[in-house]
Amino acid sequence: MKYPAGSKNSYHKKEINYSNRGMSLEDDINISNKYYREIDKAYIYKKPTPIKITKVDYPSRNKAIIKEAFFEEPSTTDYNGLYKGYYIDFEAKQTNKKTSFPLDNIHKHQIKHIRHILEHDGIVFLIVRFVLLNETYLLMGKDFITYIDQNKRKSIPYSYFKEKGFLIKDEYQPRLNYLKIIDEILEVDKK
Amino acid sequence: MKYPAGSKNSYHKKEINYSNRGMSLEDDINISNKYYREIDKAYIYKKPTPIKITKVDYPSRNKAIIKEAFFEEPSTTDYNGLYKGYYIDFEAKQTNKKTSFPLDNIHKHQIKHIRHILEHDGIVFLIVRFVLLNETYLLMGKDFITYIDQNKRKSIPYSYFKEKGFLIKDEYQPRLNYLKIIDEILEVDKK
Repeated sequence: MKYPAGSKNSYHKKEINYSNRGMSLEDDINISNKYYREIDKAYIYKKPTPIKITKVDYPSRNKAIIKEAFFEEPSTTDYNGLYKGYYIDFEAKQTNKKTSFPLDNIHKHQIKHIRHILEHDGIVFLIVRFVLLNETYLLMGKDFITYIDQNKRKSIPYSYFKEKGFLIKDEYQPRLNYLKIIDEILEVDKK
Repeated sequence: MKYPAGSKNSYHKKEINYSNRGMSLEDDINISNKYYREIDKAYIYKKPTPIKITKVDYPSRNKAIIKEAFFEEPSTTDYNGLYKGYYIDFEAKQTNKKTSFPLDNIHKHQIKHIRHILEHDGIVFLIVRFVLLNETYLLMGKDFITYIDQNKRKSIPYSYFKEKGFLIKDEYQPRLNYLKIIDEILEVDKK
């Protein structure tokens, strides 16, 4: 399995840091979510990385040190929370490809999870960054699932993001203002 | 800090297992949430325990073993998810006390989180088990916050749960049918 993208709370090692680009989308989202909380706009968090713990030491009564553990595959998306009374749920991924987003980036049970959230009236989407194009798109779960159900391809072409997705522009604060797009979608739905 | 209550994915050690009662509420909730997912009723998950990883080994290119890590204090509640389009958020705790629920069971930032969820129209509550009384209550976030704001006590008396809370009866499936109570509350709110 792949290692989860590193975060501030995660490990730092040369073997991983070559994929430094891999950290930046996550960092952008974490910083943006923190900003949303600070201005009391939304309460959206990244879920902790699931870890299977196999050995724990107790050097003293109230202290525990994990001595052996393994990364596990997440069964849901990485981010969820609350915005304007809506349940928000999304997965964030980046790719170094220029013409498509490979679907092996999203696990089967994550796709299943996205379907469930859609069916139960949550707001679910992907945030996909094309690193080499320096473009980040929000693709609604509905459009993601439609693509998967109608195509046998193992990737989603970049053109589909251009057509169905929403480009998230870099801003000063929050760095990645993805809720602006959710606002626009909610506004359209109201009409 | 206290160790998180053990789960299937967590460690098993004699030092912890004496608090076997400490596992049962969490187990009941996890099993109930699994059942809710199986019957396509709700998608509510326990968040993974936050862990600070300080050492990782790479015995081979695609394998990572965590060699040192520490439990961190969660900044939000343990469970969240989606039910009927509503954002659901709760914390579950049990106590061996018979006459009150000690508030040091709930961290300050968790109380803050509960306030935020309330203000932003999420459905937030506590599930509290009085182990020795063999009773489990659901207490809505509104009533929990009201108590905290109006009292200087370091615990919530059992009588407050009797008065304001909802007793969750043991069932066969799901074991702890807490969404039945949420249904009743939503029904009352509609009227």
